Amino acid sequence: MLPFARVAIVGLGLIGSSIAHAVRAQMPTVRLTGHDADPAVRARARALDLADDIADTAGAAVTDADLVILCVPVGAMRDVAEALAADLPADCVVSDVGSCKGSVAAAFAEMLPGVTVVPAHPVAGTERSGPDAGFATLFHRRWCILTPAGDADPAAVMRVSTFWERLGADVEIMDARHHDLVLAVTSHLPHLIAYTIVGTASDLEEVTESEVIKYSAGGFRDFTRIAASDPTMWRDVFLSNKEAVLEMLQRFSEDLTVLQRAIRWGDGDALFDLFTRTRAVRRSIIEHGQDDPRPDFGREHI
Amino acid sequence: MLPFARVAIVGLGLIGSSIAHAVRAQMPTVRLTGHDADPAVRARARALDLADDIADTAGAAVTDADLVILCVPVGAMRDVAEALAADLPADCVVSDVGSCKGSVAAAFAEMLPGVTVVPAHPVAGTERSGPDAGFATLFHRRWCILTPAGDADPAAVMRVSTFWERLGADVEIMDARHHDLVLAVTSHLPHLIAYTIVGTASDLEEVTESEVIKYSAGGFRDFTRIAASDPTMWRDVFLSNKEAVLEMLQRFSEDLTVLQRAIRWGDGDALFDLFTRTRAVRRSIIEHGQDDPRPDFGREHI
Repeated sequence: MLPFARVAIVGLGLIGSSIAHAVRAQMPTVRLTGHDADPAVRARARALDLADDIADTAGAAVTDADLVILCVPVGAMRDVAEALAADLPADCVVSDVGSCKGSVAAAFAEMLPGVTVVPAHPVAGTERSGPDAGFATLFHRRWCILTPAGDADPAAVMRVSTFWERLGADVEIMDARHHDLVLAVTSHLPHLIAYTIVGTASDLEEVTESEVIKYSAGGFRDFTRIAASDPTMWRDVFLSNKEAVLEMLQRFSEDLTVLQRAIRWGDGDALFDLFTRTRAVRRSIIEHGQDDPRPDFGREHI
Repeated sequence: MLPFARVAIVGLGLIGSSIAHAVRAQMPTVRLTGHDADPAVRARARALDLADDIADTAGAAVTDADLVILCVPVGAMRDVAEALAADLPADCVVSDVGSCKGSVAAAFAEMLPGVTVVPAHPVAGTERSGPDAGFATLFHRRWCILTPAGDADPAAVMRVSTFWERLGADVEIMDARHHDLVLAVTSHLPHLIAYTIVGTASDLEEVTESEVIKYSAGGFRDFTRIAASDPTMWRDVFLSNKEAVLEMLQRFSEDLTVLQRAIRWGDGDALFDLFTRTRAVRRSIIEHGQDDPRPDFGREHI
C-alpha cells in the first residue's frame, strides 16, 4: 500500500532531488511532478529525468498531487505556499523539509488555512547543493522529524510517516518548539561555529590563507565541509530560529570562556576531564548508527 | 639511498605505529626498533610485529639507531628525552612528531645538548589512538613540517626531509614560532571548539543527550570526531601552545560576537556574505588535495 500515489516536489535542490531519486527507487509507481523557481534548475531536472513532469509553475506541479513537499529555504516557504495555494487539490497533504519548524508552521497557517499540513524535517544532507547533488540513499538510517500541530489529522500524519519510512528513514514525532531547540544544538549551532572559524582563519595577517589550506588536515578541514553548505538555506535558518540559536550560542560562549580560563591558568585536569567525556559522545553516535564507524569518517588514505 | 638505516620509534600510539607500518612498507631494509612506556602497548606492538625489536626501555631502543623519533605527547617530551639521552649514539639524529614545536625545542635544548635535533610535525592523524590505530598510508599527500633551529646541520635536515618524503609526505621547513601560530589556527583552535561544543551539547537540560545523539547528523556529529581525539595529547597541546591558542581563541570569539549580533538584528546580508566566502575555502582545500573530494567526506550512504 503506497501512502501517496501522486507526489509533487517544489524546490529541486539537494533535498528535493534526493526525494525524487528515493521515490523512484522505493515507490516506482508513484506519479512524480516537480518544480523549481529557477529555470536553469528546471532544465537540469528535466535532463536528469528527476520526475515524470517538471512544471514551469508551482501551481501546475501540485494541481493533481495527493502529497506536496516544499523543499525550499525556510525563508521562502511563505511565498511558495502562497503561490501554490489556489491550485492545491482539496484532499492533498502539504509537507516540507525545512530545518526550522516554528516559522514554517506560522507561514503555512497564514497561507494555507484549512489545508492538511504535516511539517517534516529529514535530518540528513551533504555540503552539496542543487539538482545534481541528490541521491536515493540520503535518508537511509537517518531520522525524519514530523511536527504536526496538536489538532492535525492522525491519518495524514501516519501517511507522511509511512512515506518517510519507505524512503529509508526512521520517523519521530515532536512538538515544533522542541524541534527548534534540539536542532539549534545538533545542527544550527555547529553550522554557525563552523562558518565563524572558517571566517576567522581566512582573515589572519600573520598566517596566510595558503598556509591555512595546506595544513588544514590538522582538524580545520573538518569544519570547512559544513561551512560549504548552501548560504541561502543557512541564512534563513539563523533568521528563522533566532531565539533558540542565540540561547545555544550563549551557552557555548560561556563554556568556551571556562576552557579559555583553564588554558590560561594551566589547569590540565579540567581539560583532560572534558576531553575524556566528549570522547564517549562519539562512541554513542557510532553505536546508534548515526555516523560512519570507520576512522576519519571513512576518508580515503591512499 | 636510504636516509637512515636504523630507526628507533619511542611511543607506539597512532603516529608511532603508523611510522612503523610506513617504514616497513616503503623502506623494508631499515632496521626498526621501538619502545613504549606502557607494558600493554609493548606487548601489543610485539603481537602486531610493529618493529624488529620492541625494547623494554627507551635507552635500549635507541642504542644503535641513526634516527630516533619521539612520538609521545608534547608534555612528555622532556622526560623521555632525559631518559634516553645517555644511550644516544654520537652520530644519531633526534626528531619528534609533536604538534607544538616551541616547547619541544626548549625540552630538547635542555635535555639533549650537543645532539643533532631536527623537530618534525606530520600534519596527519585520525581520532583513533594506540598501537592498533596506525596504518602505512597515514602520511600520504599530507604535509610534514620541519622546524630546525637556525644553526641546525643542513645535511641532517635533508636526511629527515628525505625520510618523510619516502613515507609519502610533502615537506615544508618553518620557524618553530610560526609553526605554532599556524597550527594554533589550523589544528589547535578547531579541536578546542569541537571539545567545547560537544561538552555544551551534553550539558543541556531541555534537550537530552539521547536527542543530541539521534539528531547529530544535522552537523553536530562532524565535531564529535575530533572531540574523540586522545585526551592526554590534546591537554598537552593546549598547555604547551598557550599563547598562540589564546590569541586565536580571542579572534574567534570576536568574530562569533559579530555573527551573534547579525542574527539578533536580522542582518541577513552579513550572514549570506560570510557563508558565501567560507564556501570558497572548502573548494581550495579540495583543489589542493587536502581533503576527500567526495561529498560528506566519503561517508557511506547505503
